[in-house]
Amino acid sequence: MSLDLAIIRAAHERIRPFIKRTPVLTSDALDAAAGARLFFKCENLQAAGAFKSRGACNAVFSLTDEEAAHGVVTHSSGNHAAALARAAQLRGITAHIVMPAGAPASKVHNVGSYGGWITFCEPNLTAREAACAQVSARTGATIVHPFDDLRVAAGQGTATIELLEDAPDLDVILCPVGGGGLLCGTAVAAKALRPGIQAIGVEPALADDVAQSLRAGRRISIPTPATIADGLRTNCTGEKNFPIIQQYVDDVVTVSEEAIVAAMRELWEKLRIVIEPSAAVPYAAIREGKLPVAGRRIGIILTGGNVDLATVPWLKS
Amino acid sequence: MSLDLAIIRAAHERIRPFIKRTPVLTSDALDAAAGARLFFKCENLQAAGAFKSRGACNAVFSLTDEEAAHGVVTHSSGNHAAALARAAQLRGITAHIVMPAGAPASKVHNVGSYGGWITFCEPNLTAREAACAQVSARTGATIVHPFDDLRVAAGQGTATIELLEDAPDLDVILCPVGGGGLLCGTAVAAKALRPGIQAIGVEPALADDVAQSLRAGRRISIPTPATIADGLRTNCTGEKNFPIIQQYVDDVVTVSEEAIVAAMRELWEKLRIVIEPSAAVPYAAIREGKLPVAGRRIGIILTGGNVDLATVPWLKS
Repeated sequence: MSLDLAIIRAAHERIRPFIKRTPVLTSDALDAAAGARLFFKCENLQAAGAFKSRGACNAVFSLTDEEAAHGVVTHSSGNHAAALARAAQLRGITAHIVMPAGAPASKVHNVGSYGGWITFCEPNLTAREAACAQVSARTGATIVHPFDDLRVAAGQGTATIELLEDAPDLDVILCPVGGGGLLCGTAVAAKALRPGIQAIGVEPALADDVAQSLRAGRRISIPTPATIADGLRTNCTGEKNFPIIQQYVDDVVTVSEEAIVAAMRELWEKLRIVIEPSAAVPYAAIREGKLPVAGRRIGIILTGGNVDLATVPWLKS
Repeated sequence: MSLDLAIIRAAHERIRPFIKRTPVLTSDALDAAAGARLFFKCENLQAAGAFKSRGACNAVFSLTDEEAAHGVVTHSSGNHAAALARAAQLRGITAHIVMPAGAPASKVHNVGSYGGWITFCEPNLTAREAACAQVSARTGATIVHPFDDLRVAAGQGTATIELLEDAPDLDVILCPVGGGGLLCGTAVAAKALRPGIQAIGVEPALADDVAQSLRAGRRISIPTPATIADGLRTNCTGEKNFPIIQQYVDDVVTVSEEAIVAAMRELWEKLRIVIEPSAAVPYAAIREGKLPVAGRRIGIILTGGNVDLATVPWLKS
């Protein structure tokens, strides 16, 4: 399986009953500040609070009944885990979620609220992958990787179909980059629907493995990054994703931690929505002048809105 | 002039180019907690961050060219002031805004950002009304009262037309009550479009002048209330509004300050949007069990999202 617009369109049809059509917001004040027209696709308002519901639903509803009967399994403590648990609940099957011991109670609760079965493991990638493989071997559950799975990437690309329906004449489309599933889906859909568009990924400078990988021409792995953008703390982009990124993505730029927090606060204030730090990363690139934006029409995927409101980053208690 | 559906529909046509069609959000988690179906009309995502843009645009664009040439004037430091300044800017006329000396810098900035001309006065109602009358006498500007003006109330009612288009079969519609302009527009529109619907206003218990007035059968004035819901700190409902409220509104209930803060936080977390304390007041009534909601379909107007993010109420620094 590769990834193309037909596959992403099929994913869109498949998941439509299970996801929300999220609004695209604009702000005269933000446009004036940027000297550009900005179109924010609000996936923070998506079911389970993140675009991850798209990829998870596509993976789960792509399974045959035979496969589905054995459930699904993933290792993630974040938005993919909650989204997969929700998708499995909607199909009436079991989702096994491998989480590191010591994961925040709010994340455990979140997965539990969608009926996910949680397996705890040591907090490192080797232990997580081993636990995931064990659960799969024992139960027959299909592994649904958070990003290195083209069914997942196809689902993530459906946000771009909707964004380009609502704002057809974009010059640029921006999204954050963690493992690269969203970036693949976004770039493939955007380039097919609007060939002249630029597709650009944005990473925290502390988590710049994809920028490094593109320069090196091969996947570079980095130690788990300490960025505030907790959705983007991946070590290395996916094996399936990297060639797609090389082929379709125009550039990947990086932003500072300070710019991420400032962008997050500005979007809360001016758009009046709650977004998580990872979702602020593309707008941070505009704020930091990392992209030529003057006079252009720019689509931005706001990826999620799951934050702990007891610890707003600009209000350290 | 009275208020009826035809007038509100005409207002909707008049203001359509100048306002946003705001989304209606739902949340499975909030529905499960309430045991009801909740439909949140997101006027926090309205232009200038509040439903006030509807009434202000209707008032400004109802003026004859002759009237408009002299500008408009109001006394308000809040969302109506910013909305009126914006509406006047869109029509290319002057908005004079009378604000109390010592108004927060953010509110002064907000009005200024839309080109409003600010006149400062002593911080009491008598001084504000006197200053407003003086400006009007000197310039010929039309006074646009924040709530006791049926052009304003008609504009506010347009949110209900949209809400009932998106969620046609509501059993109840809820909105906060300050001066009563929104409540009048909401109740008149809702009852005309769906005769069986209940229209209920919600006030902070600290600002219960309308609940008192309905019991007394006459307008009761109270000292300026100290509620955290800064948009609802009115002394007395409007003279034009009160008979409409008596005729069309089924009930006005009150909520505690604690419930307002808890509701605000819960809506930020579960809907992933930023709302101001006043906007949380109707949901606070559901949380506090002030309304029979079980199994019903309830529309809630989330009135605005203008908050100072440096002082989130559950994060006192």
